[in-house]
Amino acid sequence: MNLDAQWITGFVDGEGCFHVGISKHKEMTMGHQVLPEFTVVQHERDIQILHALKAYFDCGVVRKNNGDRMSYRVRDKQHLRDIIVPFFIKHPLKTKKRQDFEIFRKVLLMMDVGDHLNEGGLRKIREAAAKMNRGKLR
Amino acid sequence: MNLDAQWITGFVDGEGCFHVGISKHKEMTMGHQVLPEFTVVQHERDIQILHALKAYFDCGVVRKNNGDRMSYRVRDKQHLRDIIVPFFIKHPLKTKKRQDFEIFRKVLLMMDVGDHLNEGGLRKIREAAAKMNRGKLR
Repeated sequence: MNLDAQWITGFVDGEGCFHVGISKHKEMTMGHQVLPEFTVVQHERDIQILHALKAYFDCGVVRKNNGDRMSYRVRDKQHLRDIIVPFFIKHPLKTKKRQDFEIFRKVLLMMDVGDHLNEGGLRKIREAAAKMNRGKLR
Repeated sequence: MNLDAQWITGFVDGEGCFHVGISKHKEMTMGHQVLPEFTVVQHERDIQILHALKAYFDCGVVRKNNGDRMSYRVRDKQHLRDIIVPFFIKHPLKTKKRQDFEIFRKVLLMMDVGDHLNEGGLRKIREAAAKMNRGKLR
């Protein structure tokens, strides 16, 4: 299945999620792991769409989510930085999800300069992440 | 906001719903009303998307849904037949929602020939409608 860039943007405006997870992790410098990820979750009946997204972006994985749901997920920071972010700069989201994307992009830039490795930077990342995914339907 | 046809298809693949409601209605010939509708529901923060869809299709209404959600809705059978259905024939959905669309289209054709006005036809419509919107996330 070949996907069109505008179709992908529309679909991600509906179903996509830009998320920055922050969790405790003893082995990390600041005792916390910052985990930016881009995901699209679908009912398993539409798994072929997730594989088509993976093929289009040529990165990420298709994995089981909860119950009968599957997800396409990109966590690799280089792939996020070099593939996912440039795509959504070129093909801007039209919903308010674009604000999440902008924060997501900013967090990746902050991580590039090592902000997640010092206390002040980690706090800034935490504040930015808290502003994401508000007013979601689910 | 100008929308691209492929963006709309992608967004509807994610967020759109083709539905055929069948409810009791004393004043209708068969004692039941058959109500096909096309809807897109969004959090109120994205109401501008719903108005952009309305402007693009030049039909339908934007209404309050539940709580903080708003919906774009087309119920007028002529608009469904002449605007919505031809659009999704020209720009096919890529998810399994396309199957819902095909049933929806079939029900509209059945109503065109008056199937909803006789018992056998109404039963066929009911059977078709029961096959729609399975495996939905919500």
